[in-house]
Amino acid sequence: MPRYKAVVEYNGTNFEGWQSQPNGNTIQQLIEKSFLAINLKKIKIFGSGRTDSGVHALGQVFHFDYNEKLDCKKVLLGINHFLKKKCISVLSIITVNDNFDSRRDAKLRTYKYKILNRLASPVILENRVWHIKKCLNFELMKKASESFLGIHDFTTFRASSCMATSPQREIILSDLKKKNDEIIYLVKSRSFLQHQVRSMVGAIKAVGESKWSLKHFDEVFKSKDRNRCAPPAPACGLYLESVEY
Amino acid sequence: MPRYKAVVEYNGTNFEGWQSQPNGNTIQQLIEKSFLAINLKKIKIFGSGRTDSGVHALGQVFHFDYNEKLDCKKVLLGINHFLKKKCISVLSIITVNDNFDSRRDAKLRTYKYKILNRLASPVILENRVWHIKKCLNFELMKKASESFLGIHDFTTFRASSCMATSPQREIILSDLKKKNDEIIYLVKSRSFLQHQVRSMVGAIKAVGESKWSLKHFDEVFKSKDRNRCAPPAPACGLYLESVEY
Repeated sequence: MPRYKAVVEYNGTNFEGWQSQPNGNTIQQLIEKSFLAINLKKIKIFGSGRTDSGVHALGQVFHFDYNEKLDCKKVLLGINHFLKKKCISVLSIITVNDNFDSRRDAKLRTYKYKILNRLASPVILENRVWHIKKCLNFELMKKASESFLGIHDFTTFRASSCMATSPQREIILSDLKKKNDEIIYLVKSRSFLQHQVRSMVGAIKAVGESKWSLKHFDEVFKSKDRNRCAPPAPACGLYLESVEY
Repeated sequence: MPRYKAVVEYNGTNFEGWQSQPNGNTIQQLIEKSFLAINLKKIKIFGSGRTDSGVHALGQVFHFDYNEKLDCKKVLLGINHFLKKKCISVLSIITVNDNFDSRRDAKLRTYKYKILNRLASPVILENRVWHIKKCLNFELMKKASESFLGIHDFTTFRASSCMATSPQREIILSDLKKKNDEIIYLVKSRSFLQHQVRSMVGAIKAVGESKWSLKHFDEVFKSKDRNRCAPPAPACGLYLESVEY
């Protein structure tokens, strides 16, 4: 049965996340409905990973099977017509090997987190950034963010409900940039623990507002104690930027 | 009477432009209402210039008088609380000289125009870009955009309803950049004619989609004939980025 790989952008604001749920308004369910809307029946899609309620994606990946050869461009335009008002847009659909698996085969996932650091609330970037009024110390935040690089035990930064067998992850990129009043964090790893990026950003922010010293940040990181972590950053600033294979 | 200068950001999507209108849902009127909402009566605001219906601003400037000394930060937070749900956010308010005039004293205005050039419609940038599906030739567009630099007669690129006495303007910066599937145009001048930026972008796009050759673009520019211009680019991609004094 032919297998297809699709890349999708979504504004997660009004969704209960990626993953299908009973009675749920989720991205996965809406995309499956969009296939039905163009008469492609019984398509089940498999994402590279879940995203939480309110989290956006610029390049989420999913795969699906269909028992016929599809005209990919036609399917893309068809489902996007249905998804247009739903804040979901499929960027590409291509044929892949039968054994391609969007989750298992992912080599690198990139997340972006956007902070807007100014007094006035955002309107162009409404629901697209974490708005922080208090003036943040960027240099200290940058130093904190660099501690994440390499292989570490991220127990402090994983949700207590996280099901992963190991709390160890390797962070390949952990880069904080500032452009005017926007602070943008890019982080890359093969995979992430539940709530990991938001928890890391929450801790970086605690340093930026001088609630935590760098020394305290370090202690909390090494403590492997979830209870000592700062509150996770809100979903609205988080983007699944890309998944590489 | 003390005079104040304010900088404001707005998402123009749901407004009939900047300028007050009878029965109009305009940005100027909403800001004036927001002063009333915090009990500052009879404040009339004067913008650096109008923006059309649907056009955004990252740094529109206005001035206003008030017969008392104001606590600027308190006023800013107060009116922003009122404006929060209206897609308007006042970024700063400062005291200025009594003779400061936001329109007359402006030395340089910067506009940004954003194009998203891909097949799939935008969701994160919905109403924030001109979405063009047809693949554009960026190099040709860049060449066309460079012709605007310097002092020229912009009759071809001004609305027939434009009231300015001279069609001549000096363009200080005319820069087109590409980042992935976004094409961003930055243009600076002391002042612009009505619909000038959108008409210029419309012509650049005609070159990008190979509807016009560079030679034809040049002829149209020199013809000073409004009727020969390409359709102006839509308002949704245009941002008044800043006004310098």
